Amino acid sequence: MADSISWIAVDWGTSNLRAWGMSADDLVVSSASSDRGMGKLEKSEFPSALSDVCDRLDLPSSGSFDVLICGMAGARQGWLEAPYLEAPTDLRGLAMAAVRPATSDARLKPAILPGICQKKGGENVMRGEETQLLGLATLMPGYSGLVCMPGTHSKWAQLRGTHIEHFSTAMTGEMFELLKTHSVLRHSLAGDLDGPDRADGFAQGAADGLESPEHLLGRLFGIRAGALLSGRQPGWCAGYLSGLLIGTEIGANRDQIGNDPVPLIGSAPLCALYEQVLAMAGAKGKAVDSTEVVLAGLRTARANLA
Amino acid sequence: MADSISWIAVDWGTSNLRAWGMSADDLVVSSASSDRGMGKLEKSEFPSALSDVCDRLDLPSSGSFDVLICGMAGARQGWLEAPYLEAPTDLRGLAMAAVRPATSDARLKPAILPGICQKKGGENVMRGEETQLLGLATLMPGYSGLVCMPGTHSKWAQLRGTHIEHFSTAMTGEMFELLKTHSVLRHSLAGDLDGPDRADGFAQGAADGLESPEHLLGRLFGIRAGALLSGRQPGWCAGYLSGLLIGTEIGANRDQIGNDPVPLIGSAPLCALYEQVLAMAGAKGKAVDSTEVVLAGLRTARANLA
Repeated sequence: MADSISWIAVDWGTSNLRAWGMSADDLVVSSASSDRGMGKLEKSEFPSALSDVCDRLDLPSSGSFDVLICGMAGARQGWLEAPYLEAPTDLRGLAMAAVRPATSDARLKPAILPGICQKKGGENVMRGEETQLLGLATLMPGYSGLVCMPGTHSKWAQLRGTHIEHFSTAMTGEMFELLKTHSVLRHSLAGDLDGPDRADGFAQGAADGLESPEHLLGRLFGIRAGALLSGRQPGWCAGYLSGLLIGTEIGANRDQIGNDPVPLIGSAPLCALYEQVLAMAGAKGKAVDSTEVVLAGLRTARANLA
Repeated sequence: MADSISWIAVDWGTSNLRAWGMSADDLVVSSASSDRGMGKLEKSEFPSALSDVCDRLDLPSSGSFDVLICGMAGARQGWLEAPYLEAPTDLRGLAMAAVRPATSDARLKPAILPGICQKKGGENVMRGEETQLLGLATLMPGYSGLVCMPGTHSKWAQLRGTHIEHFSTAMTGEMFELLKTHSVLRHSLAGDLDGPDRADGFAQGAADGLESPEHLLGRLFGIRAGALLSGRQPGWCAGYLSGLLIGTEIGANRDQIGNDPVPLIGSAPLCALYEQVLAMAGAKGKAVDSTEVVLAGLRTARANLA
């Protein structure tokens, strides 16, 4: 028989909502997810979206449960704003700054963790990644150094134990989608994007991006020219664009990267690409499972919840 | 009484079609334009689009007229493909490579000038700008050096008299539109984009782009963060984005720019922004009227037409 659920962990992003029923000793008992991300919800719809996903967690028939939430549900346009903590800060302080939105579901006692903002050294914000960073600090105690979180808006954070010192954001994933969907390059990226020459295109793009990250605006149009002049296929062009953007991102951050492997938190296929480009740059990456770290972060935050 | 028309000059781009009635001694007698650019036309619609605009040029009631066309009408998706000349090349050879599309309008004898491609040193293509460069070489005889043509796809060309040596393309203008319209930054650029702090935002963005053109992907998200954290207004954000992109473009090309003023061919407001950023970079720009240079280029090409 499974352990019974003692509390609920929730990662509530822009696109998706994921929930886990957790035992008293912090093991995952059940899980459920939905596509009712913050981006699709009005303020009034958050309570029922949470109740619906919790209905599928097999909760005990009586009792009420802490629900610890990280991510965009705490944004101004989300359920209830959880004001940012300002970096540099100790991520163990996240739980103390949680806000408690109202719900009529007597089973649930929701608390939303804040995001992190940075006002000096480049204005920046994150929501959700801070909990993953706290989780990483829990899973790799004492780690000091750079962490890369590839994605729509890639985050690069300097971590010292549970302290976040500084971070930046690269719009790499969003830029790929924008260019593929809306730019003149869409003509060269229409068709089979997983063709056999995608890997070749990726390697070439990554090499170009690493070599001269300052030339991104100039390199992009080369994709169109390559399709016109050399008959480059959509797969090659998609690979080149992906490689160029990731190479540019890593190239721009190259002097922050030391000899230790850089923990990579993100989807497995994307982390594999970043590992490849880091290796091309003479550095190392080490993929870390993003679900593991968000759960580890929520567990640690839960231990500090008031 | 106006001189009578001896031939017709046409600049046929993606968005617009502009035509000028020219006298035997190459003065402009009349002009007309339409929004029937190449991007909006099927192949079969080009002849009538040309006839319609020529109807408004006040042509003599009899006779037939050379129509010399530059621009996207010669693209593969245009009226009739005018295969590229390959750089480096002498732009006086453009007319020799013109193609002659068919029309049932007995008044008109159309010829379309080719574009220029580059296969070595970065694949690239241009259509329309080569005629402006030939015009610049005519208006500034003997000029050798860099020419910048700001726009949707900014071109940077190395000219030596009438020879084009090398060129590159920066997707600066398109990137501004993409980010403003489709990216997460659209939230920060919605509203009055010509607010009083636009100039401040532009200057800050240009300084950041010039300082570190490799950090474009990282700086962009700062616009969103600035709106969230510092209440940056849409005008400031639009100015910053524009300045950042132009600063990045000029910063990436900085080591090509010498002490001579860089001729700038483009719209007057855009050239003024490039002049400002070039000055911030310790260089000089000199705006050249784009209609003047395209007409000068078409005149010179016409003199060489077979």
